[in-house]
Amino acid sequence: MPDTEEFVVTPYEVRGRVDYDRLREMFGTQELTGELLARLRRLAGGELHPLLERGIYYSHRDLGALLDAYEGGRPFFVYSGRGPSGPLHTSHLAQFDLCRWFQERLGVSMYIQITDDEKYWSRAGLSREETVRWGYENLYDILALGFDPKKTRVFFDSRSIAALYPLAIRVARKIPYSSVKAVFGLEPSANIGWIFYTALQSVPAFWPSWAEGKPVPCLIPCGIDQDPHFRLSRDIAEGLGFPKPALLHSRMVPGLLGEAAMSTTGSSADNALFLDDPPAVVERKIRNAFTGGRATVEEQRRRGAVPEVCSVWALWRTRFAESDERLRQVTDDCRTGHMLCGECKGMLLERVHRFYREHEAAREQAKAWAEGAIVTGPPAGAGV
Amino acid sequence: MPDTEEFVVTPYEVRGRVDYDRLREMFGTQELTGELLARLRRLAGGELHPLLERGIYYSHRDLGALLDAYEGGRPFFVYSGRGPSGPLHTSHLAQFDLCRWFQERLGVSMYIQITDDEKYWSRAGLSREETVRWGYENLYDILALGFDPKKTRVFFDSRSIAALYPLAIRVARKIPYSSVKAVFGLEPSANIGWIFYTALQSVPAFWPSWAEGKPVPCLIPCGIDQDPHFRLSRDIAEGLGFPKPALLHSRMVPGLLGEAAMSTTGSSADNALFLDDPPAVVERKIRNAFTGGRATVEEQRRRGAVPEVCSVWALWRTRFAESDERLRQVTDDCRTGHMLCGECKGMLLERVHRFYREHEAAREQAKAWAEGAIVTGPPAGAGV
Repeated sequence: MPDTEEFVVTPYEVRGRVDYDRLREMFGTQELTGELLARLRRLAGGELHPLLERGIYYSHRDLGALLDAYEGGRPFFVYSGRGPSGPLHTSHLAQFDLCRWFQERLGVSMYIQITDDEKYWSRAGLSREETVRWGYENLYDILALGFDPKKTRVFFDSRSIAALYPLAIRVARKIPYSSVKAVFGLEPSANIGWIFYTALQSVPAFWPSWAEGKPVPCLIPCGIDQDPHFRLSRDIAEGLGFPKPALLHSRMVPGLLGEAAMSTTGSSADNALFLDDPPAVVERKIRNAFTGGRATVEEQRRRGAVPEVCSVWALWRTRFAESDERLRQVTDDCRTGHMLCGECKGMLLERVHRFYREHEAAREQAKAWAEGAIVTGPPAGAGV
Repeated sequence: MPDTEEFVVTPYEVRGRVDYDRLREMFGTQELTGELLARLRRLAGGELHPLLERGIYYSHRDLGALLDAYEGGRPFFVYSGRGPSGPLHTSHLAQFDLCRWFQERLGVSMYIQITDDEKYWSRAGLSREETVRWGYENLYDILALGFDPKKTRVFFDSRSIAALYPLAIRVARKIPYSSVKAVFGLEPSANIGWIFYTALQSVPAFWPSWAEGKPVPCLIPCGIDQDPHFRLSRDIAEGLGFPKPALLHSRMVPGLLGEAAMSTTGSSADNALFLDDPPAVVERKIRNAFTGGRATVEEQRRRGAVPEVCSVWALWRTRFAESDERLRQVTDDCRTGHMLCGECKGMLLERVHRFYREHEAAREQAKAWAEGAIVTGPPAGAGV
């Protein structure tokens, strides 16, 4: 659990100015090399998702072996999840965008876990009704990104427990409390649900193997802060007869107020663009967002601004630049002082508003098939 | 957790010569007074179950308030459970015998929990297949005691998790790991399933209240060694909006080899009469059982024997004396030396063999309705 003087990254906290290369070394993950990216590009028909192309995903575990198996005719599946404590914000979309891309390009299945139980256990202020309600709201937002109803299944923990529990029983026996304390820092005062929860989070990574009675490789795209969660899943996988899940790690998207991650825990709601923010709020947040601009217009025209520290540039880079060419242009115009922050924000806002409008329509369509995607029972014939 | 020089009693261990009155004081439970027994007798139509009449049940929590409510027109339900690690032995029947009596005499509903998950978590040597198989075997034995199919419902944990989990989520948030450590002595090396489990064990005590949307009182007959389990349930009940379950505590039935309880954990299988023992094994075990007899026939004829320390007398007292008159006679004949141990064992064996024969037939009938008694989903309209 990296905790240096400069930055802290755990599954429950991101603080300070994160040195991502150093973090990768501390976690002991592998670099997402140009060679691996080239392989992915080839398999995907000649293109990479912008999040890969632009280096947001930068680290992995066992991606090479996963692609070996894929090329050998053994398809994998992607798995990602969401703890429903409130509305999604735009940076939550990175992992799901990438999953959708894998589904579209490689035809793989997607499993989404909605952890309404875990959020109730880990956030004392949330009611059950709230975590369930946010679970559905978040699920609609995720499905609206364009997942294929025929290849997408959902574990909504409290609704899907009959499907998950038989496997969770086996997983839980492999994990002592001492591991949970070491990995997540959960003290003895933590409630026993929260402590148990990591077993349930591992289950989807193994579920298709259990259902099909043969090893089905799993790929989990996640923020690198979530690596410890799945390191635990990897540690126990083989003892249960399942393949270790492969991981793809992203950098965290910085918050609009200049914080290390677009989190809203313990900080202002203005730090993030929520998917349920009305247009005027979106506009206000972006207009007020922290940038890499200079103190005066004159200075910025002369010296240019600094995209690397700018939360608006991060939005261009992670989601809203429709092409690498556009990103390059925005970056150049920023760095040279040709474009000031106000103009840049205006251009970005056009794209954000358009996304929100299109997303709203897609969300209504997703509602129609969400219920049918929820898995409510164990796979037929999978045993106890 | 009483742990004196003379005896130890915890939910996972009973050792030494238990002083039951002192244990009651140490646990802080109430005495099952003659007044309460008289009240029960009246409500039950003039008779008491032998386990009550003969003082096997000797302690309680809140039984008086439960009977007040019952007399005020608010029916309670009885709840008991079994961790399926192997075949039942005769002393396991005490709690279910009493439940059945309550059902028959007071018309109350019975909830049985089969904890196939917990036994997998707490016994490293057991496979899932074994705990599930024993779960069904044990369930048939329990139902065969004469429960009413119309008023008996079963939570078979791995099968009933969809029914239990919504409530378990709420219960688990109320229980810190530190409480589980204090009550059960579960160290940090214990697996997270075992730690979580106490939440699931509390759920049936609250489930009918949840299902009906109003307080439904609960009565749990159990060995006094299990009191700590349910003390935890009682501690959290009111914070969840449910009535505290009332408890009725029994003494432990001593083992055939003279141990404090008829347990088989860490001791010989000859310590207990298993319900699947063939007649010849039953006979051998009883013939070899530890008694309160004297070194020689001559001495026993002269001084008599000591029923209080005798494992065979305990069987007469807890289950096999068909009347209090019979028990009195056996006791007198033992104490005066009129009857020697061999003769006593022969008379007991007749009754034990008969019970086994009748039980086998009842068990076949129970199999026919067991599946239908298992609750597999949450109650309609009970909320999240």
